[in-house]
Amino acid sequence: MFPYIFRYEISPHISVHLECKGVLHSSRSNFQKIEVVESLDFGRMLVLDGVINLTERDEFVYHEMLVHVPLFSHPDPLQILIVGGGDGGAAREVLKHEGISSIQQVEIDKEVIAVSKKFFPSLSSSLDHPKVDVLLSDAIQYVREIKNKFDIILIDSTDPVIDQSEGLFTVPFYKDCCNALKETGILAAQIGDLFFDKELVKDVFDRLKDVFPIVRIFRASVPSYTLVPYSFAFCSTTIRPEMELGLSRFSKTFQTRYYNEQIHKAAFALPEHLREEFED
Amino acid sequence: MFPYIFRYEISPHISVHLECKGVLHSSRSNFQKIEVVESLDFGRMLVLDGVINLTERDEFVYHEMLVHVPLFSHPDPLQILIVGGGDGGAAREVLKHEGISSIQQVEIDKEVIAVSKKFFPSLSSSLDHPKVDVLLSDAIQYVREIKNKFDIILIDSTDPVIDQSEGLFTVPFYKDCCNALKETGILAAQIGDLFFDKELVKDVFDRLKDVFPIVRIFRASVPSYTLVPYSFAFCSTTIRPEMELGLSRFSKTFQTRYYNEQIHKAAFALPEHLREEFED
Repeated sequence: MFPYIFRYEISPHISVHLECKGVLHSSRSNFQKIEVVESLDFGRMLVLDGVINLTERDEFVYHEMLVHVPLFSHPDPLQILIVGGGDGGAAREVLKHEGISSIQQVEIDKEVIAVSKKFFPSLSSSLDHPKVDVLLSDAIQYVREIKNKFDIILIDSTDPVIDQSEGLFTVPFYKDCCNALKETGILAAQIGDLFFDKELVKDVFDRLKDVFPIVRIFRASVPSYTLVPYSFAFCSTTIRPEMELGLSRFSKTFQTRYYNEQIHKAAFALPEHLREEFED
Repeated sequence: MFPYIFRYEISPHISVHLECKGVLHSSRSNFQKIEVVESLDFGRMLVLDGVINLTERDEFVYHEMLVHVPLFSHPDPLQILIVGGGDGGAAREVLKHEGISSIQQVEIDKEVIAVSKKFFPSLSSSLDHPKVDVLLSDAIQYVREIKNKFDIILIDSTDPVIDQSEGLFTVPFYKDCCNALKETGILAAQIGDLFFDKELVKDVFDRLKDVFPIVRIFRASVPSYTLVPYSFAFCSTTIRPEMELGLSRFSKTFQTRYYNEQIHKAAFALPEHLREEFED
């Protein structure tokens, strides 16, 4: 009945084994292997080069935190850039902020969008919204040409260990992003696992610090990713996440399943063993 | 070189596989199977009836949070009761509070203490401290006879699914604990996994609510336990955790690796999908 065990590595010596009903889709694009797997406990999963990219059961945690933490920290977010995010989950959450003007989405792999449209319509339908412009292109090239345009940049990429994402974790790219942001702009990015990949996350953190005066880590528990809360970076030239979130500013007019004001604040608390290395 | 894979279930359909160097100890006490396993990523692990009870790598998270959250929430903790905790980790953390008068430890299984003394001396040496009195007895019987004595009760037990711990998760036991506490007393207990065992945790939460006017969930990430932050209950008749923690009260005079003031506050934030069910 359950012919398939999906196995993924948390560290070189730890693996997680998920009972699955089967593989619904498997293809290879110009950039990566794309699979859709039906698991018993996490539901349908999008798997890129063998790594879980999202699952039906817990994608809300990742997407709500990547999006609402920066957007609720900004006084008036209008122009939004999403780098990657071809599944549409980040765009779906951004669209809940009715005041935004437009979303520029830059996704390199059109196959990810096509597969998401077929298997994850509750995420990908956001890409058809009139405020969303999807550009099939390399974000590294794209941001190089843009100056002083965006209020928010969300980097919703695969991990830096994967070839086509490596350039998204470099100082030149972060500099281009900084220039593409307005002065009050905020960049938010997923940066990995602070327990088993701490050195890698520290590297990325240090590169961000080379570019942005304010870099803060925030965390959220995405159970299908790893054994510890997953970490994100909040970067800005002028805005600090906890200072900007007054009660008057916080007027969430839509439903969320993970994000709320207490979670926003709590997400920035770091355990003592991480505080020195990762605090501003 | 690595002859042994230690496997544990996160849910009926998810298992975690740890590469291990081998089993250092295996015995059966009157109450449970006791093993000590040497894993590559978590170091030495104490395993009771097949369930990881602690690992060298991350026991600090569990013990610091179980202990310091209630102790720093109390204005003047003097008399401390630890239920279970035969490894000595909870006592070690309590002893960092120099103002305490005494620790009464009630552990049912003397074999857990003996194995911990041999394999986990950095935890178990606390049990030899002159302020610690170890009673080898059933805590259920013990608390029945005690009235109005303790400032803090810490329930450091195995999970409720395991036979000998079941009685530690009942309303009569919680009532006896409430009576054994002074009026300003606090009970803290580990209560499990809010993602995969949410119904079980909700049951325990509701039983605690039957007895204590104030019951709050706090969480901390113990990577060897499960895929999500592990949950604890904070229970009291008069003290609310976040109200009592003013900066003047918080004078931590010792080193911690996980716990700090920000983490204390953040630990009580619940995601939106848990807030209605588990908030006071």
